[in-house]
Amino acid sequence: MTIRAEDRAAAGQIPLFAKLSTRTSARLFRAAQAHHFGTGSVLFREGDAAEHFHVALDGYVCLKASDGRGEDHVIEFVRPGTAFIAAAVMLGRPFLLTAQVVQPGRILFIPADDFRQAAESDLALAVALIRASSQHWRSMIGQLKSLKMQTATQRLASFLLSLAEGQGEPATIELPCERRLLATWLGMVPTSASRAFGELEKIGVVGHGSRLQIRSLEQLAGYARGVPFGKTSTASRAARR
Amino acid sequence: MTIRAEDRAAAGQIPLFAKLSTRTSARLFRAAQAHHFGTGSVLFREGDAAEHFHVALDGYVCLKASDGRGEDHVIEFVRPGTAFIAAAVMLGRPFLLTAQVVQPGRILFIPADDFRQAAESDLALAVALIRASSQHWRSMIGQLKSLKMQTATQRLASFLLSLAEGQGEPATIELPCERRLLATWLGMVPTSASRAFGELEKIGVVGHGSRLQIRSLEQLAGYARGVPFGKTSTASRAARR
Repeated sequence: MTIRAEDRAAAGQIPLFAKLSTRTSARLFRAAQAHHFGTGSVLFREGDAAEHFHVALDGYVCLKASDGRGEDHVIEFVRPGTAFIAAAVMLGRPFLLTAQVVQPGRILFIPADDFRQAAESDLALAVALIRASSQHWRSMIGQLKSLKMQTATQRLASFLLSLAEGQGEPATIELPCERRLLATWLGMVPTSASRAFGELEKIGVVGHGSRLQIRSLEQLAGYARGVPFGKTSTASRAARR
Repeated sequence: MTIRAEDRAAAGQIPLFAKLSTRTSARLFRAAQAHHFGTGSVLFREGDAAEHFHVALDGYVCLKASDGRGEDHVIEFVRPGTAFIAAAVMLGRPFLLTAQVVQPGRILFIPADDFRQAAESDLALAVALIRASSQHWRSMIGQLKSLKMQTATQRLASFLLSLAEGQGEPATIELPCERRLLATWLGMVPTSASRAFGELEKIGVVGHGSRLQIRSLEQLAGYARGVPFGKTSTASRAARR
């Protein structure tokens, strides 16, 4: 059984798989599968053996952890076109997080042994994995900085900005999941999340449900950096230094 | 100029450099240097070009970020025998964090180009780097879970436990830095840190300055997991499942 040509092509779009040798490509895709998953699908749970290496070809996946008191907390959002949790696969250890689909899409599954053996025998793939992990690492440091140094509303502002990347003004964005789940990622309770959205509405972030419009990206960026209203131009200049 | 034999031997103790080929070893160490640094020494600053790959041979290093309002926040502690911030070196990007020595020790510097070229041409080193980064990644996920799901005092309890690893009871530990800096790593203000230490004193974590004694590791572990006093045995059993 082989995967569909369009799934193979979509996998080739991610930097990790952009320059595979014929031999490595054959090894990675000989038993790979891709399926469409609806919102809420659970791909694996915290503590499960890492049997596959996963790539979100499209759709959004969230990685979350249970606090043991019945509440789930989102640790990370996986954007379309991204591989996730190579660490457990490479070390042959259980997953530390649960992966759940928050926006429907196709997910690629590569058997863990095939991926690990390919990465351990093909220098080009190993180097591509180091580069992908390094970039991922840097975004994780950004998240840690944010958790320690920004208020919850500033973190929400930063996240909304990241969704508006590359857009002009006003920017229209679509939240990848319901606001309640987003709140746990921002490290706050749902009522604080409502207050945070209310706060951002004052500087022109408006909308209902999952679709929002951002009037001024610069003003939102200023807010995220802790600059009082009306001084965002200075903040924006400082940030560009 | 070559590094001292004992520094080369200490570098060989870390898993990343445990099985180097003669050729790769020659490349990595041809221009490497090791120096002793006292407490407070700054190895590099946030935003600096990544000119070296660093290994803490002994001593403790903290990685921190400035919040732009004059306050530093510790993002991570680097234990003795650990390499740090391979990501910036491998991508040729500026460091995202400042590295400061918090306990005196020797630090190994390998020129960034030598390290990158070695990792990109030697499959064994590349695979060792993937494994080291994967383990590091997992510990980072642990920190993120903790920041989102534990109270500040629970985080402090978890950190003290990690310092007591492998010890019997009572365990004697040495904080790697002053309590004020530790507080920023735990994501709290100094006054909350005092309250947190006071809270743990009630369950037998006693001492002054940087040296502490832990009466019961099991009770402290129970506290870290949010189990009320007197129920730690159950918690400990549950954690072992």
